[in-house]
Amino acid sequence: MLIVQKFGGSSVADSAKIARVAGIIAETYNAGNKVVVVLSAQGDTTDDLIEKAHEINPNPSKREMDVLLSVGEQISVSLMAMQLERLRLPAVSLTGWQIGLHTNSNYGAARIKTVDAERIRKELDKNRIVLVAGFQGVNKYDDITTLGRGGSDTTAVAIAAVLKADKCQIYTDVDGVYTADPRKVAGAKKLSAITYNEMLELASLGSQVLHNRSVELAKRYGVDLEVLSSYERRPGTKVKEVVKKVERMIISGVAKDANVARITVVGVPDFPGVAFKVFSVMDRERINVDIILQSAGKGGTNDISFTVAAADADAAKAALDEYVESIGCDHVSVDRDIAKVSIVGAGMMNAPGMAVRMFEALSNCNINIQMISSSEIKLSVVIPEADADRAVSAIHEKFFGEG
Amino acid sequence: MLIVQKFGGSSVADSAKIARVAGIIAETYNAGNKVVVVLSAQGDTTDDLIEKAHEINPNPSKREMDVLLSVGEQISVSLMAMQLERLRLPAVSLTGWQIGLHTNSNYGAARIKTVDAERIRKELDKNRIVLVAGFQGVNKYDDITTLGRGGSDTTAVAIAAVLKADKCQIYTDVDGVYTADPRKVAGAKKLSAITYNEMLELASLGSQVLHNRSVELAKRYGVDLEVLSSYERRPGTKVKEVVKKVERMIISGVAKDANVARITVVGVPDFPGVAFKVFSVMDRERINVDIILQSAGKGGTNDISFTVAAADADAAKAALDEYVESIGCDHVSVDRDIAKVSIVGAGMMNAPGMAVRMFEALSNCNINIQMISSSEIKLSVVIPEADADRAVSAIHEKFFGEG
Repeated sequence: MLIVQKFGGSSVADSAKIARVAGIIAETYNAGNKVVVVLSAQGDTTDDLIEKAHEINPNPSKREMDVLLSVGEQISVSLMAMQLERLRLPAVSLTGWQIGLHTNSNYGAARIKTVDAERIRKELDKNRIVLVAGFQGVNKYDDITTLGRGGSDTTAVAIAAVLKADKCQIYTDVDGVYTADPRKVAGAKKLSAITYNEMLELASLGSQVLHNRSVELAKRYGVDLEVLSSYERRPGTKVKEVVKKVERMIISGVAKDANVARITVVGVPDFPGVAFKVFSVMDRERINVDIILQSAGKGGTNDISFTVAAADADAAKAALDEYVESIGCDHVSVDRDIAKVSIVGAGMMNAPGMAVRMFEALSNCNINIQMISSSEIKLSVVIPEADADRAVSAIHEKFFGEG
Repeated sequence: MLIVQKFGGSSVADSAKIARVAGIIAETYNAGNKVVVVLSAQGDTTDDLIEKAHEINPNPSKREMDVLLSVGEQISVSLMAMQLERLRLPAVSLTGWQIGLHTNSNYGAARIKTVDAERIRKELDKNRIVLVAGFQGVNKYDDITTLGRGGSDTTAVAIAAVLKADKCQIYTDVDGVYTADPRKVAGAKKLSAITYNEMLELASLGSQVLHNRSVELAKRYGVDLEVLSSYERRPGTKVKEVVKKVERMIISGVAKDANVARITVVGVPDFPGVAFKVFSVMDRERINVDIILQSAGKGGTNDISFTVAAADADAAKAALDEYVESIGCDHVSVDRDIAKVSIVGAGMMNAPGMAVRMFEALSNCNINIQMISSSEIKLSVVIPEADADRAVSAIHEKFFGEG
């Protein structure tokens, strides 16, 4: 089999951890598989490099930041090659430009365009373990780019797609995808399998196991993913197109996302086209809008509320403030003390009553729901951030407690 | 003018030093010059990386060491670009593979084959300051290589040669080439100019200002070098083909090299071909032999002594020990407590009496000469290491004291 394995930064943080990961790689290779390994930068390397940069220039160009940050993964792959050499295994480390991972020029958050992978194939033909620096590529000018958050996961999935690998294993701190954050919710259960769509909802809701881009890519190319632990040797969670009924729970998970803010455009006149204006401003600023609520305000006016990523809140308010007059609204307010809590499950559509059970759980704890949003496989509520952990536990207990 | 500037690792060791160097670069650029800057890895970066590697594998492959070590220069150039951006100057950092610096595959000590430099030219045409990571290149397999000791100097000279630069300035800790080590010899004088050949002798004799390979390359392509200080803004020492008489002293310098060892093959029978055997063994082991002395030993036998780099002494002895029987000698001994002291000067050939003055200086201090070697521009003696500093001072005083 051809297996792509990805290990995150904490899994290769020091020489002892590198030795442990090398053991996993060696076992996979010695079982007769062809192995490509994608690594992130060691532990705090990236943060240290960012600090070094900011000491020199608080606002360096993204191009130069990418030149700087890409060294982190290069260090990881060369050290891992040395560890494997010590185990007398044939290994070769390769950077983003060496494997021909081509991206667009959006430095700091570049998108993968193509992966040549010719070099990887050559090295696999020589029976070598191929160690690939994750998170990095080159653009059409032969400049170094980095892929942004979750970049190494994305690198692994892209390589698995191009090589038509049999498996793509993402090794992390946790041993799989859980029905809720196991550090916070007692009784959280590990899922043996989950669909791409469910995983996408969970990832975007802040479960932090896999980055959305990597799941989207896996879905597009049908790459079978598995999330598993670098520390404990047992099956993880498979992420794939269809999950068999026996493996499936109606709800796959309960997730919390506290990195959201609510923007409210207060006192909007009840004319057509006002909502259009508000959201076209957001579109121009490239700010993603999530849940939208239009409600009656005072004196025949409306309030338009919507959620955005917390990091975008200031930009959203600033952009809208310029249009207060032309929109004819009263003012624009921001509430950061909110969280989004969601249940996700591919089986929800055909199982009525999910919403009722969720709202009942919240009502039992006296938690006020501010906004509601639903899709075929997801139901989200916006509630005060202070109530979020309690809400997750109560909802989780409601759905998984008796089972 | 097109100027290539090279700054060593101690000149860019921290953010304050990077800022200082950026000032020199900015001044050069703002004076209307096109500027290419070659940088080494910051201060202890290379040593730190080597330590990391050895913690994992005491004997890693040279290929992987090169992947690892090349990040040091990449960090330097990106940080310097950020510093120049802060000064609102247009700068771009480039790695070895980005500038098309092609080498052979001798990992760890690769030789430059060609430099495309097309990318550098493009960036210069855009009026950018081009920051090049020194010490590194790529071989024909697109693998990363490093150039070994003095690699960044060599990178700078190679780029100056390809671009036909008007100047190649090597900035270091010292402000030029001195008639002796100024930290040890009171009254050491800075030379305003020196020939390539003199510099080559001084470099190989351990004056440590410029590495031989860079001087050889400069000589071959007629690159005008200047060695000058990163810390003090004044003229340094020019290194060129011909030095005008007014600039020239008969002796350019007195140098000490303590990194030598003397190998003695004791009790060699007085047959033809024995010396040939000894030195063909050294040749096969790729050990450079410097000064050779054959002297009469006991009972009709000879002793063959020669000097090698201290680092090669063990290998030399081990190789010869295997041949003790076939050579028919008594045994092989090693003496590490020696030093080579030399005077260098392009004018020596036409100035008789130099040797007499040197020997007189040594005799006045009661220093025994063990071996002597001379070339057109150099006269070297091997003496006990304990006497070397005294010897350098006495010789320097003899030649430069009265002037």
